[in-house]
Amino acid sequence: MIDEYEGRISTPVPRILEKYRDEISEALKISISDQSIFVYEMLRYCLGWVDKTGEPVKGVPGKALRPSLCLFACESVGGRVTNAMPTAVSLELIHNFSLIHDEIQDFDEVRHHRPTLWSIWGAPKALVAGDVLRMIADRSLEAYGDIDVGTTLRQVALLTEACLDMIEGQYMDISFEGKSSVTLYQYMNMIARKTGALIRSSIHLGSIIGSSDDEVARMFRRSGQSLGYVFQIRDDILGTWGKEYLTGKPVGSDIRRKKNSLPIVYAMSESQGVAKKALKEVFSKNELEDRDVELVLEIMEDVRSMEYSQGLAEEFCDKALDTLREARLSRDAMDDFGELVHFLANREF
Amino acid sequence: MIDEYEGRISTPVPRILEKYRDEISEALKISISDQSIFVYEMLRYCLGWVDKTGEPVKGVPGKALRPSLCLFACESVGGRVTNAMPTAVSLELIHNFSLIHDEIQDFDEVRHHRPTLWSIWGAPKALVAGDVLRMIADRSLEAYGDIDVGTTLRQVALLTEACLDMIEGQYMDISFEGKSSVTLYQYMNMIARKTGALIRSSIHLGSIIGSSDDEVARMFRRSGQSLGYVFQIRDDILGTWGKEYLTGKPVGSDIRRKKNSLPIVYAMSESQGVAKKALKEVFSKNELEDRDVELVLEIMEDVRSMEYSQGLAEEFCDKALDTLREARLSRDAMDDFGELVHFLANREF
Repeated sequence: MIDEYEGRISTPVPRILEKYRDEISEALKISISDQSIFVYEMLRYCLGWVDKTGEPVKGVPGKALRPSLCLFACESVGGRVTNAMPTAVSLELIHNFSLIHDEIQDFDEVRHHRPTLWSIWGAPKALVAGDVLRMIADRSLEAYGDIDVGTTLRQVALLTEACLDMIEGQYMDISFEGKSSVTLYQYMNMIARKTGALIRSSIHLGSIIGSSDDEVARMFRRSGQSLGYVFQIRDDILGTWGKEYLTGKPVGSDIRRKKNSLPIVYAMSESQGVAKKALKEVFSKNELEDRDVELVLEIMEDVRSMEYSQGLAEEFCDKALDTLREARLSRDAMDDFGELVHFLANREF
Repeated sequence: MIDEYEGRISTPVPRILEKYRDEISEALKISISDQSIFVYEMLRYCLGWVDKTGEPVKGVPGKALRPSLCLFACESVGGRVTNAMPTAVSLELIHNFSLIHDEIQDFDEVRHHRPTLWSIWGAPKALVAGDVLRMIADRSLEAYGDIDVGTTLRQVALLTEACLDMIEGQYMDISFEGKSSVTLYQYMNMIARKTGALIRSSIHLGSIIGSSDDEVARMFRRSGQSLGYVFQIRDDILGTWGKEYLTGKPVGSDIRRKKNSLPIVYAMSESQGVAKKALKEVFSKNELEDRDVELVLEIMEDVRSMEYSQGLAEEFCDKALDTLREARLSRDAMDDFGELVHFLANREF
């Protein structure tokens, strides 16, 4: 349920994200080409193609991680990229659906330097726009032409499960809010669903379209599970220590919002005595002040929250790579995947 | 997107709504039996099985119009009721999903004398609960065992289209708000989607499972289209002139809420001169007072808004019946359908 950078800086983009970009963009635009009612204009705004007056926007759109992973998985096991495109489109639309609803739930007024849907058009219309997007995602998936109905139905069912996982994770996240006793186990379970489910499905579903080998599909699924952790943990690190001009959020922003991010959960579990008491006090406040945020950052430094978090991200990096190595892909495919995994674990935005 | 009576009074219930009640109820309960996270408890509350503390509630639950229509359609063309149950369950869950989100959008605090989900647990959790319900509806549909994957996929695709129609209709309804120039044509188009799509699909999808005759399915679809109008137009009549102890809403409640209901749209289009000017003035106010509501009711009486609306409902009644007669069902089935259609056109709650 976390969005990505928008290519505002000139860091080299991993090949997997570069390679399929234009094809994905074209397919997405076709999926939201309806002009009949204004809600579709809101969706085009959400996807970053137009501004709020409907004027086309120049610049690089989102990096489309999930569809790129799906197409990569399909191609790397010998499938045709076009065969996986309906699933790829569906994944990106579902991701955006979840963002629209999350922003309403979290009262987020800005995403990537742009006002969110609800903050422009109001929560009722934004809520409906999210629901519309969810339906278009379903429709994209059902539009399969070239693959057999059994495989199509399996894609539909797996994506439903992933989506349910994602939403349950979002529910867990909301219900953790304001609790100072979230355990690492609960945190890992929550992000495995909230963020992990869709990333995992991206490469799992792609591999199923590309190959009928169940064993291979299982490896992609497991690798995708690890990749989900890498993505969210790095996201949490950036939410605490990321640079504002890169992430669009000030340092400590997750602390200020009292989010259940890994650095916070870890600090809470590792700190002792006075520090632990201070943390609990800070997080029981309704609104955090600057000095509260600074105090939390200090305690995090004491317990080495950043090192722990980054270490865990890198462990999952290795796991994602080790698991996929068993699938015996071509060297080029493994190189590309390795590049992407390391990019996700070390990105600054 | 409108809910039904809760059986609070002892009017005879049409056979179609009586016949499948227990089977539907059982299947619905299985579909929401998860206990792992609290959101499922919220859904059980939404379906009317428990109170907000989780205690089982006695009394008659909703009348389950959509699933009953689906099972009836399947059985009346020679299909087995159990074969249509996954679709029936899915329809009822989608209907409830739409209610949960509608209530958030419309700030409705009460439905059928019970506090709405968001008013108890807050909008963020209610929004997610709606999303979860939508996913469970998908999952129910994909769980088909006995029918072939091609038919299953067709059910999935048709229900996606109906759902998209429904949500687009809801969007149109929201965007009409505050406009005094909604035409009858726009109104009919909006309710055909918002309410009609799901009711139409209920008997259309049921007939597809019961029979492979495309011509028959088309008749059910067209009949269902008319039935959707009957249902919503009668709902609009009750929203203006219904008795509070039966509907749970005071007389004139749709006027006070400035809803785009048929009596209002008709009065707006038919009134002239001073009356038209007065209507426009009333509906340009932020909050309506009692005397505003009374004025609108008087103008409606002058232009015979109630007679027009009821007349239109009865026209669609005849259309629904005439269309289905072509499908040459058994006399018993036609009798049951006729009873239901007239019930929907004349209900008081």
